[in-house]
Amino acid sequence: MRHNPGGGKRAEVSERRQAAGPPNSPTLADVAREAGVSRQTVSNVLHAAHKVKPDTRQRVEQAIAALGYHPNRSAQALQSSTSRMIGYRIEPQGSGTLAGIHDRFLHSLAAAGRAADHHMLLYTAADHVAEADSAIRLFRSGAADAFVLYDIIADDPRPPVLLELGIPFVAFGHNDLDGYRWVDVDNVAGTSAAVDHLVSRGHRRIGFMGWPAGDNVGDRRAHGWRRSIERHGLIPLCHALDVRGADSVQAAVEMAFLLLDRPEPPTAIVAATDTLAAGVTRAALRWGLDVGRDLAVVGFDDTPTAAVLELSSVRQPIEDVGRHIVATLLAPDTEPFRNQLLAPQLIIRSSSASPAPR
Amino acid sequence: MRHNPGGGKRAEVSERRQAAGPPNSPTLADVAREAGVSRQTVSNVLHAAHKVKPDTRQRVEQAIAALGYHPNRSAQALQSSTSRMIGYRIEPQGSGTLAGIHDRFLHSLAAAGRAADHHMLLYTAADHVAEADSAIRLFRSGAADAFVLYDIIADDPRPPVLLELGIPFVAFGHNDLDGYRWVDVDNVAGTSAAVDHLVSRGHRRIGFMGWPAGDNVGDRRAHGWRRSIERHGLIPLCHALDVRGADSVQAAVEMAFLLLDRPEPPTAIVAATDTLAAGVTRAALRWGLDVGRDLAVVGFDDTPTAAVLELSSVRQPIEDVGRHIVATLLAPDTEPFRNQLLAPQLIIRSSSASPAPR
Repeated sequence: MRHNPGGGKRAEVSERRQAAGPPNSPTLADVAREAGVSRQTVSNVLHAAHKVKPDTRQRVEQAIAALGYHPNRSAQALQSSTSRMIGYRIEPQGSGTLAGIHDRFLHSLAAAGRAADHHMLLYTAADHVAEADSAIRLFRSGAADAFVLYDIIADDPRPPVLLELGIPFVAFGHNDLDGYRWVDVDNVAGTSAAVDHLVSRGHRRIGFMGWPAGDNVGDRRAHGWRRSIERHGLIPLCHALDVRGADSVQAAVEMAFLLLDRPEPPTAIVAATDTLAAGVTRAALRWGLDVGRDLAVVGFDDTPTAAVLELSSVRQPIEDVGRHIVATLLAPDTEPFRNQLLAPQLIIRSSSASPAPR
Repeated sequence: MRHNPGGGKRAEVSERRQAAGPPNSPTLADVAREAGVSRQTVSNVLHAAHKVKPDTRQRVEQAIAALGYHPNRSAQALQSSTSRMIGYRIEPQGSGTLAGIHDRFLHSLAAAGRAADHHMLLYTAADHVAEADSAIRLFRSGAADAFVLYDIIADDPRPPVLLELGIPFVAFGHNDLDGYRWVDVDNVAGTSAAVDHLVSRGHRRIGFMGWPAGDNVGDRRAHGWRRSIERHGLIPLCHALDVRGADSVQAAVEMAFLLLDRPEPPTAIVAATDTLAAGVTRAALRWGLDVGRDLAVVGFDDTPTAAVLELSSVRQPIEDVGRHIVATLLAPDTEPFRNQLLAPQLIIRSSSASPAPR
C-alpha cells in the first residue's frame, strides 16, 4: 500500500478494521480534490497502484500525506456485529461460474454462519454496481454487517467501493486488486490435473474448450491446460486444439465439430465447464464416437449433470470455500490476513477412464 | 375449524392474525390438561380434526369452550414486521423435490421480497423438527417475521407447530392439514399433460416411473399418469407398466430394464423427476434404443440436466410460486385466505417429439 510503505498485509488489515476515526478527518474526496484527480484514481492508488501513471500516483500520495488521510477509517470489525447477518446477492440460476454448484455454496455459507451464530441475508441486484449499492444500503441500515462476493471479474467495481467505505467482505474469487480478503479455488491446478490424468491414460492430442480470453476464471482454466501440455512436451501436437466460445451446450457442440474435423483431431478434450463437456458428449454421439472409448472428455465443477452423464470432472471444494469465507469474516483482528487458494479434486468417471484409442 | 363452527377460512385467518390477547389467557397446554389429552391431540383437533376420534374431539372442544381458549392469540400480522426478514431453511443440494430448481425458487423469493422491501434470511437445520425449532427461535428473537416452508410431507411436523404459536408462514406444497396458507404446483395436471402429449404422438403403452407410495408429491404425479391413461382407455395396456424406486439415476436404470424386459414393453415412459428420466435415457442407450425414436421419455422439473439431455419435461412455474408466496405473506389482513394451485407447463424436446414406433 503506497500510503503506508512500512505496512504489510497484516498492518493493512488492522488499519482497515480500526474503529471510526475522529470526526472531520479527511475523506477520499478531499484527497481527490487536493490532488486534482477523480475519486476512482485515488482509490486506484490505494488498491491497484500499478494502474496509475507514476506522476499521478506521486501527486495523490503527496495529497494523502499532506492531509493525513487514512483510508477506511469507518470500518469496524465484524465482532462488533449487531445484526449478525452476512449479506449475499443471489442471481438467477445458471449464471457465472457457480452454475450447477450454487446450492452447495450457499448451503456451506449458511451452515458455517450458523455455527458462528450468524445468518445469511439474501438480496438481488441487476448487476455488480447495483450489488455494491445494495450492500452499502444494507450495511448502513444495520441489516447486514458483512458481505460475501463471488464471480470476481477483472476491474470488478465491488471490492474498491466496499474497501473504501470500510464495509467488511470476503470474496470467492480474486483479481489483481490488492488489499481485500478472498478465498479461491486453484483453477490452474484443476485443468492441469485433468491433462495429467489424460496423459497417464495415453492421450497425446488433448484439446481445450473454454470461453473467450479476458475472464479471470476462464483464463486460469486455459492456462492450466497449456501449462500441463507444455510440461508433457505436447505443445506441437495440441496448440491448435484450443477453441473458445460461449458457455452453452449448443456452442460446445459447434466447437467440438470444429475440433473433430481437424486433420489431426484430439483424442481427449478438457472443457472449462460441465456445460461445455456435455456439449462435447452430444457432438461425439452425433459424430459416431463413443465417449470414453473413442474420445475422452473431462469437465469442470462436478455438477449433477456430470454425474448423470458419467462425466469426469474437476470438483471445486465448495464446502471448504464456504467455511473459509465465514471463518475469515469472523476472524478476530489479531489474526493474520491470509488469502486462501484451495486445491480442487479430479473426479474420474467413464468419460475418461479408458486408455486412449490407438 | 371445530372450535369455531361459524367461521370460514376468512374468519380463521383474521383470528389467527389478531394482535396478542390479554395476559394469562389460556394456552394450548391448559386445554390439553383440562381435556386429559396431549398437546398434539389438541393441535390435531384444531387443524386436522379428521384425525381425532369423535369422543376425544368432543372432549377437547368442551375444554376449549370451557376455558375460552383462542388459538394463535400471539400471532401478529406481518405488516407489523420489524425485521422485514423472511426465514428460509436451505438444505444441501439435491434434496427433495426442488433438486435442480432450487436456485430458481430462492431467487424468485428474494426478488419478490425485495420488491416489498423484505429480505430472505437463510438458516440450516438437520430435519423438519429442528427446522421448526429454529424458526421459533428466529421469530422470538425478532430476526425473522415470517417463514417459507417447502417439501411438505404427510404429517409434516412444521405447520401445526407454527400455527399453534402464531408464527406466520406460507408453504410451497400442501398436505391434508387444514388452516395454513400454501402455494403448490398441480402435479396431477403435470403428468396428466405428459400422457396426453404422448397419446397425441401415437403412444399406447405408456409406463410410469416414480418413487414409492406415501409421498405427497410422488403420489400426485403417479395419480396424474393413471388418471390420464384411464381417460384414454389405456389401463389394460399400461397398468402393469408402473415401477417405483429411489430417485436416483442408478435406480432408474434398473427400473427401466425391468420395464424394457416386459413381454409388452412401453414405447414411452413418464418419469416423476428428471433424474429418473436421465436414468431411463441411459438404460435405453445400453438397451440399444434411440431415445426419441424407439422410446419416448418425459421427465419432471425441467432442470438444467433436462435441457442438456434434450429431455421433454414438465416445468414448474417456480417463479410464480415464489411471487405468490411472498404476496401471500405480505397480504393485508383484509385479503381473503386463498391457497393457490398453479399449472405446470410441458416443455417438449427431442426425447418425445417423434411419432410412436409402429
